[in-house]
Amino acid sequence: MERKRVAILGARGMVGQKFVQMLSEHPWFEISGLTSSTMAQQPYGEAVDWVLDGGVPTRASDLVLSHADPKELDADLVFSALPGGVARGIEKRFAEAGFPVVSNSSAFRLEPDVPLIVPEVNPQHLQLLDTQRGRRDWGSFIVTTPNCTSTILSIPLKALMGAYGLRKVVVVTMQAVSGAGYPGVPSYQIMDNVIPFIPQEEEKVRHEVSKMLGKFEGGSIRDPGIEISASCNRVPVLDGHLESVYVELDADVGAEEALKTMSEFSGLSQEEGLPTAPDKPILVSREEDRPQTRQDRLSGSVPGMSVVVGRVRPGGSRNSLLFSLLGHNTIRGAAGCAILLAELLLCKGHVVR
Amino acid sequence: MERKRVAILGARGMVGQKFVQMLSEHPWFEISGLTSSTMAQQPYGEAVDWVLDGGVPTRASDLVLSHADPKELDADLVFSALPGGVARGIEKRFAEAGFPVVSNSSAFRLEPDVPLIVPEVNPQHLQLLDTQRGRRDWGSFIVTTPNCTSTILSIPLKALMGAYGLRKVVVVTMQAVSGAGYPGVPSYQIMDNVIPFIPQEEEKVRHEVSKMLGKFEGGSIRDPGIEISASCNRVPVLDGHLESVYVELDADVGAEEALKTMSEFSGLSQEEGLPTAPDKPILVSREEDRPQTRQDRLSGSVPGMSVVVGRVRPGGSRNSLLFSLLGHNTIRGAAGCAILLAELLLCKGHVVR
Amino acid sequence: MERKRVAILGARGMVGQKFVQMLSEHPWFEISGLTSSTMAQQPYGEAVDWVLDGGVPTRASDLVLSHADPKELDADLVFSALPGGVARGIEKRFAEAGFPVVSNSSAFRLEPDVPLIVPEVNPQHLQLLDTQRGRRDWGSFIVTTPNCTSTILSIPLKALMGAYGLRKVVVVTMQAVSGAGYPGVPSYQIMDNVIPFIPQEEEKVRHEVSKMLGKFEGGSIRDPGIEISASCNRVPVLDGHLESVYVELDADVGAEEALKTMSEFSGLSQEEGLPTAPDKPILVSREEDRPQTRQDRLSGSVPGMSVVVGRVRPGGSRNSLLFSLLGHNTIRGAAGCAILLAELLLCKGHVVR
Amino acid sequence: MERKRVAILGARGMVGQKFVQMLSEHPWFEISGLTSSTMAQQPYGEAVDWVLDGGVPTRASDLVLSHADPKELDADLVFSALPGGVARGIEKRFAEAGFPVVSNSSAFRLEPDVPLIVPEVNPQHLQLLDTQRGRRDWGSFIVTTPNCTSTILSIPLKALMGAYGLRKVVVVTMQAVSGAGYPGVPSYQIMDNVIPFIPQEEEKVRHEVSKMLGKFEGGSIRDPGIEISASCNRVPVLDGHLESVYVELDADVGAEEALKTMSEFSGLSQEEGLPTAPDKPILVSREEDRPQTRQDRLSGSVPGMSVVVGRVRPGGSRNSLLFSLLGHNTIRGAAGCAILLAELLLCKGHVVR
Repeated sequence: MERKRVAILGARGMVGQKFVQMLSEHPWFEISGLTSSTMAQQPYGEAVDWVLDGGVPTRASDLVLSHADPKELDADLVFSALPGGVARGIEKRFAEAGFPVVSNSSAFRLEPDVPLIVPEVNPQHLQLLDTQRGRRDWGSFIVTTPNCTSTILSIPLKALMGAYGLRKVVVVTMQAVSGAGYPGVPSYQIMDNVIPFIPQEEEKVRHEVSKMLGKFEGGSIRDPGIEISASCNRVPVLDGHLESVYVELDADVGAEEALKTMSEFSGLSQEEGLPTAPDKPILVSREEDRPQTRQDRLSGSVPGMSVVVGRVRPGGSRNSLLFSLLGHNTIRGAAGCAILLAELLLCKGHVVR
Repeated sequence: MERKRVAILGARGMVGQKFVQMLSEHPWFEISGLTSSTMAQQPYGEAVDWVLDGGVPTRASDLVLSHADPKELDADLVFSALPGGVARGIEKRFAEAGFPVVSNSSAFRLEPDVPLIVPEVNPQHLQLLDTQRGRRDWGSFIVTTPNCTSTILSIPLKALMGAYGLRKVVVVTMQAVSGAGYPGVPSYQIMDNVIPFIPQEEEKVRHEVSKMLGKFEGGSIRDPGIEISASCNRVPVLDGHLESVYVELDADVGAEEALKTMSEFSGLSQEEGLPTAPDKPILVSREEDRPQTRQDRLSGSVPGMSVVVGRVRPGGSRNSLLFSLLGHNTIRGAAGCAILLAELLLCKGHVVR
Repeated sequence: MERKRVAILGARGMVGQKFVQMLSEHPWFEISGLTSSTMAQQPYGEAVDWVLDGGVPTRASDLVLSHADPKELDADLVFSALPGGVARGIEKRFAEAGFPVVSNSSAFRLEPDVPLIVPEVNPQHLQLLDTQRGRRDWGSFIVTTPNCTSTILSIPLKALMGAYGLRKVVVVTMQAVSGAGYPGVPSYQIMDNVIPFIPQEEEKVRHEVSKMLGKFEGGSIRDPGIEISASCNRVPVLDGHLESVYVELDADVGAEEALKTMSEFSGLSQEEGLPTAPDKPILVSREEDRPQTRQDRLSGSVPGMSVVVGRVRPGGSRNSLLFSLLGHNTIRGAAGCAILLAELLLCKGHVVR
Repeated sequence: MERKRVAILGARGMVGQKFVQMLSEHPWFEISGLTSSTMAQQPYGEAVDWVLDGGVPTRASDLVLSHADPKELDADLVFSALPGGVARGIEKRFAEAGFPVVSNSSAFRLEPDVPLIVPEVNPQHLQLLDTQRGRRDWGSFIVTTPNCTSTILSIPLKALMGAYGLRKVVVVTMQAVSGAGYPGVPSYQIMDNVIPFIPQEEEKVRHEVSKMLGKFEGGSIRDPGIEISASCNRVPVLDGHLESVYVELDADVGAEEALKTMSEFSGLSQEEGLPTAPDKPILVSREEDRPQTRQDRLSGSVPGMSVVVGRVRPGGSRNSLLFSLLGHNTIRGAAGCAILLAELLLCKGHVVR
């Protein structure tokens, strides 16, 4: 199979760099374009303030940055790592111009006719594309992936909900500084400190998780009626979001059974053997002090694409469970999840440009 | 008033040092003895591996350490900062020998006839001392203060429970390394990491908070029937425990009203004007990103003795509230709380030695 | 004595905030004006992103920011905490308009007719003001204080040079993130990392230290001919610059004697009893593992104004010594040193506006 | 070739674990034994408190720990990661019993008849083995590798010395916490701190570097007469020692030429193509802000085995140069260097057991 040509919008930021890194050796995709609003015309390798391990991949390094303008790019699909403010307008222009857009930006996530998808959780929501085509006068389409925190939370919740029904969720997050992009959080602010607030994050968790866990019915998503309370904290770690979760289920489930259910959970991306799909979406740990952020953030057969769950135990209320989960925020929580979704789109015939 | 002579059992550890630091300039107490199991006969200043700011207080520095033996000490009251393993036997011996013991160790906290007290929360539990006298053949008594995490959680919970009734609590903590004592957590373990487990901590939170919020009736404490779920995490900060709290109350309460209730909360220690009592047990912040660990851990009129509460807002379920609280773990959460309790005992005539 | 009215140019930055904090309770000065290029007309308390302990001082909080324009300010003296780029033009305008300017910016530090002064090191360089008056058509004058790293290094070097002659210096610094201002160093860049480069810092150390240690002769400063090699590193600490120093002297000096010389070193600011002068400019430690950044950065009778020196020992070459020194970069290394210099100016009759 | 059987003495510590990790997939060696003084008879996987990435290698996990007793082990060669106190006696017993010993402990490093070797620096010192055989009544021999700090420093020094002659070295180190082993440095001691002292480290640097750079003549090593001054600091990073180096050479050498010399430096281990030899012992960076600890510690064709040198520039004195170097302390600075030395021994026919 010939590799599809993909472009990355907003390629200089933290998530943009992760897209470049993960796509540089991708079996199905090759990078044909990179955009930057402020550094167009410069070679990527010179314009980027690269902060990830291992240096700028050679091929990307020589690519000349272009403006985020459909006329300047040639690609079969575009990934968007654009910041909230500008994403809406630019992504729309690319969809209108006939580019399939896979976006990690928040701009369109909650639009009723835009799929918000984690491939293991709700691939059936791709049916919303029919609704989208009916309502928008676009040459192609936009699909989105959730915020990092919502993404990694949605996977074990889906596993539990499918098996036991889900009524209530109380989640408290401990999020890495890379989640704020680059330069992001000033060091003077976060060293020896925890900040109990991340702008818009708690609302995103509530709304995005609800949308993903909802049922596609009659052309739209039905709210599943789960009560979600989220509290988001920034902690001084580089990468990896750890979440402490309390759930109330429809049934009384033992810790061991819940562990088994999560461990065996699998999705369409595993079934189809997509290149970025980890063998197991959820890795379960039985050690009493895991998952740990630094130790576990790159776990799994595709490093950083599995969510690690541990400390599964009964909560203090009826039908309740407690557990901790860890996910890599810029891999499973951002670039990796969007690439996995693009693989699913390609596999299912949605990329026909 | 002549100052009472106090001894500190286990004076070389992290909490022992904090006792020494806080008692060195105390208006009611003066340090008459310090004990160490391994370094007896040595001057404290040479034997201690002092890790707090400002160096060993001059007077304490010259005191010669003794064994934790009632015969070797002369004091009107002893504070215990002993580690769990040895605390039980030693504290009992001191109580038998006629020393009032104020203990920050876990050994006796959950005994039904031993008061577990935060002066602002449940001073009336001192009535358990009658039960204790009736059941133990001790020359004096033991009173205890809770674990750091339970202490700082209990204060806002008491405020809310008193006003609105309390049904359910889900608490997730982000705790400082000083909570593990010294040397405590290895740096190679915690830098760039979060550890979602602290041995015995979650059980302590559940049982200690339940005991403190229970009612004294007929010579014992009645369990208040609150459903408590706790998840305890270690984060890379030096001092200060931050807790994300979800509560369900008996009534629907607005954030503003809850804020007011907590801000106005006061207790017996404030009423009596005890020297270590802060003007306000709870400082309330309206800023969207507070309390923060480093910024707020020394807040208040007696630095480190107030709990700072912020981000009060509705949760996702009926009658629920979310908030963040911060307390200094070795001050309000350990030495400071025990000193405040000793002040209360003295003020109420319990220290008659 | 009536307090002099002082204004702070660039009051919103890290050093600007430190000026505000230190001047809020100053016995000789009161803040009459604060400037900000981007936030003029707003109350300081709302415009500033305050990052220091203890919140914005009440009085400063209500002051309305003005533009850095001599016509908009009324003051007997101005402190400049302006960034390099704009400092030159603005400071000159204030000097022209008759304001004595005490600047912590680098703009004029190396001008041959501008005094660059640490009050304990080279107060006699104030004689350069005559040269300055002769060459500039200004209504008043500009004096400067060195870069943080140079300031704290110059004090023990001066002590040693005065006693034994100084030939060669090799200094390696480990500098705090607060030295880069705010937001300054991104957390993703510095956590679990050391960066062996700080723009312009090594040149500043070389040139500024040489100027300060030079002799005032015939209206200008003579280069003292000391060979200086500097390597500047950024390390993940909040405040406090630690420096490892190697010196070659004119004579063979024992560690104990050098220690004594530094411990007894004192200057004009101590003699005059200036309010911000610490009892001892150099605190000497004999412990084998001091000075340490976190433990010692606020040492001394005026917290943060003393340099702490330790580990004095022979080097591997003839007439060489090794030692470590620590200084608080935003106090002794910036705002505190400038305030001390302003006190000296006032005391010596230079502030006559 | 059949793989040689190797045992690791002191396999549970930080360096012991690194030996286990690096030898688990080694083409020439297989682990036949692991020792622990306190946990003998237990499976390694259960007895070890594993702190490195990726978990305990499967094969090592099942090995049962034995005492450090030559009678209990069967091996062609033993690696020693024993702590200073016990290393001397145990290593001697193994050498007596006929085991070639490659030791990373300090016990025998400075004995005049024991080779202290970095394979790229002084392989010819293996000739000392003849002296050793002549003087000791051992069945086999002991060879040693230097302390981490000395190891990584010696490589660029050797390159420069070979080309230009070396007179004086002033080195200041910024060392990772993993260098202190595990549990090692308490987190409460090092967070937000720099500690300007590491016990015995500066003496080791002086003596070990001098020995390695000395000439083998007439059966012993002649001191090269280089003046070395070292100052060792502990900084809050996980892995990787950064060193700021000042040298005085016999000639005036430009930065560019020195860079080239170091970049082209190669040794016997590269010539022989030893499996753990990196393509380049020294990687040279021309970026102004490299090497950085976190970014560069795993650089090179064998991750962690190259030293990264950058910021090469003239110093302030005649014939002087300044540069920064970074090496991975537990790889090149410990286990990796010892493995490389064992490969050299095997390749040169010294392992004949």
